[in-house]
Amino acid sequence: MEAISIGLLGLGTVGSGVVKIIERNQDKLMHQIGCPVKVSKILVRELDKEREVEINPELLTANPDDILKNDNIDVVIEVMGGLEKTKEYLQEAINHHKHIVTANKDLMAVYGPELLQSASENQCDLFYEASVAGGIPILRGLVDGLASDRITKMMGIVNGTTNFILTKMSKEGSAYEEVLKEAQALGYAESDPTADVEGLDAARKMAILSTLGFSMNIDLDDVKVNGITEITEEDLQYAKQLGYSMKLIGIAHREGEKVEVSVQPTMLAETHPLAGVQDEYNAVYVYGEAVGETMFYGPGAGSLPTATAVVSDLVAVMKNMRLGVNGRSAAVPQFEKKLKDDNEIFAKYFLRLHVSDEVGVFANITNIFSQRGVSFEKILQVPVKEKELAEIVVVTHQASLEDYENIMLHLRDLEAVKEIKSSYRVEGGAKR
Amino acid sequence: MEAISIGLLGLGTVGSGVVKIIERNQDKLMHQIGCPVKVSKILVRELDKEREVEINPELLTANPDDILKNDNIDVVIEVMGGLEKTKEYLQEAINHHKHIVTANKDLMAVYGPELLQSASENQCDLFYEASVAGGIPILRGLVDGLASDRITKMMGIVNGTTNFILTKMSKEGSAYEEVLKEAQALGYAESDPTADVEGLDAARKMAILSTLGFSMNIDLDDVKVNGITEITEEDLQYAKQLGYSMKLIGIAHREGEKVEVSVQPTMLAETHPLAGVQDEYNAVYVYGEAVGETMFYGPGAGSLPTATAVVSDLVAVMKNMRLGVNGRSAAVPQFEKKLKDDNEIFAKYFLRLHVSDEVGVFANITNIFSQRGVSFEKILQVPVKEKELAEIVVVTHQASLEDYENIMLHLRDLEAVKEIKSSYRVEGGAKR
Repeated sequence: MEAISIGLLGLGTVGSGVVKIIERNQDKLMHQIGCPVKVSKILVRELDKEREVEINPELLTANPDDILKNDNIDVVIEVMGGLEKTKEYLQEAINHHKHIVTANKDLMAVYGPELLQSASENQCDLFYEASVAGGIPILRGLVDGLASDRITKMMGIVNGTTNFILTKMSKEGSAYEEVLKEAQALGYAESDPTADVEGLDAARKMAILSTLGFSMNIDLDDVKVNGITEITEEDLQYAKQLGYSMKLIGIAHREGEKVEVSVQPTMLAETHPLAGVQDEYNAVYVYGEAVGETMFYGPGAGSLPTATAVVSDLVAVMKNMRLGVNGRSAAVPQFEKKLKDDNEIFAKYFLRLHVSDEVGVFANITNIFSQRGVSFEKILQVPVKEKELAEIVVVTHQASLEDYENIMLHLRDLEAVKEIKSSYRVEGGAKR
Repeated sequence: MEAISIGLLGLGTVGSGVVKIIERNQDKLMHQIGCPVKVSKILVRELDKEREVEINPELLTANPDDILKNDNIDVVIEVMGGLEKTKEYLQEAINHHKHIVTANKDLMAVYGPELLQSASENQCDLFYEASVAGGIPILRGLVDGLASDRITKMMGIVNGTTNFILTKMSKEGSAYEEVLKEAQALGYAESDPTADVEGLDAARKMAILSTLGFSMNIDLDDVKVNGITEITEEDLQYAKQLGYSMKLIGIAHREGEKVEVSVQPTMLAETHPLAGVQDEYNAVYVYGEAVGETMFYGPGAGSLPTATAVVSDLVAVMKNMRLGVNGRSAAVPQFEKKLKDDNEIFAKYFLRLHVSDEVGVFANITNIFSQRGVSFEKILQVPVKEKELAEIVVVTHQASLEDYENIMLHLRDLEAVKEIKSSYRVEGGAKR
């Protein structure tokens, strides 16, 4: 039986992992698909750079057309990253009727719907399991495993770098800047960590997850984003004291036909299944109308875990090739996109203020809340050392985002409020 | 487009859930498969019993042939339970070229390989996601999500009843018998709880999981089983004190070509992802050579969660029908079954003894261990109130099962050893 022939775009961390797994597990792959698989061409920038894996130099090329327009190549695996040029490459490959497996979340968050449609029109598969939460088969879990259910809510710890940083800050009581440096030294954070720590990486993954889970084209621009750079040791101490775990959480929540999608530092009740997800691990919590609570946990990055997801997608493509049924899986979204307005987004909030330590201040503050119908679940007040100030910490009951932002506006106007130290969404507690 | 027609065997808890989900989610199903789905016939024992769902009485039948030999029925969903007769029914349905979806773990643990082969020969699908861990899409996770990896270890909390009981015993310090009664009153345990509390139910699921995960026909008889009925409050206190969580764990472990599969009460390091799985929830931890640690968490039982898994299987069958590719997914195992011998099964053990409180006893005991090369990770000794006895608790380092059983034999022979109070496998701690 003729071998299925792979063209690889990129030979970095994930690409090397893909080569290793295809080599190591040739027997298992052969058993599953009934024919051999071989990597035939690899696009690299520099032909004679040192590599993590041993590669026959004849496989390497610096010319993309050797793969994209090569009639002998069946499947293109894209692990080079990038956006515009990468999209052109994949479009070219699809035009030449090649199936695509990609690990590129940036690409899928922005051009996913367009590429999927084009692939479908050309009877090509396009799979992208590795683009969200690395080794965790979450996209398949949503599409196949929960095929019969309607997803209500997804909450994800989908960025390993920030989870590593927050876990360490919380365990050791260290400051953000200090832990970031450590994470960079260990290779858990990049030298320019912006996309991770500002939440953009997580936002891309949440756009992909919510598009699939809600069957609705959610764009990156639809995701409200807040990063972790402002989180202080004090915030983490309060979180602990109040029974919360601070996590950067992507939340996608559907009520009726309308959805909200956001990424923000969140105080998560310690009883929530996501609260125990430590270090660089990822997890996605899914609430379905019928199934209730489920969670998928695992490594969110790394060469071999991510490559596992890539090669599992490759297996799916190859099975489809053997059955002659490629290009049928890219479902057109069932629903038109409808985003919630700010008065339809409800959450509890943690708020920490510094106020003048005077009679009547507390009453003024609570008035601002109660005028908008927002009540408190928890209140703490402590004097601030060596200043004429008091620190007030409240956790609200459910409030609409509109009301909450309006409250913040009025608090800022209050002369007695010296500083709004921090404000976080609170999740968990009651199940869902 | 003509509707796909379902015959349902059984209309109990799960059957009613299946009817509800098919009705409620008709739009989503229609969107995914492009044609309507209808339940055409339902086999029940009593035609005029009160039901949890509203059913057109004309759909009910007491004659299995109305479904099994009915040319208008495409897919048979088996949610009636039972073994021998149920197997005959499904064989008959397969002979009449019907696709099968079943939630029956007893059946799949015993007759799975035979039925799968027969289905495959008749170009029929046979899916059974709901048979393990209810609403958690774990079988799909193993087969598709981790298709490219080689699974090394699976550990499962796959029985909700026992997890509910152990969680409650541990939280409240209550005795087994008392919590069992409470669980029965709440509907979490059956009036005859034997299959759950003796570990048999979990063993069936581990046979199914390890057959799939290791691609090797593991029989129910290959699974070593121990239940939870002997666990005492003292054991749970020691577990807590030593940093463990007591769980009924199914362990399937491959080293090279050989595997071990067991179900037993296990002291699990509190840092292990499974240790936080509370109440009636299920979870399966999977360690793959490339992916590393992953975990799938969710409801292990219940009408709608289990029905979600059944209807998701139904969606897979219907997609295959539309593509004309049924009966291709039942993979013949890749490997011949090879079970580890007792000298190849390694674990750490917790052991609690009552011994005479005399000089030299402790030395005699440690001698028995050290003669077999087994050393201790932890040792506690406390006097037993109002008796001339001491309680010794040890946690060993890794020992082979052969050595450990030999040690137990020799301890029993020792006159100073008055009673072996308990002995449990210990897992977790170091990652693997």
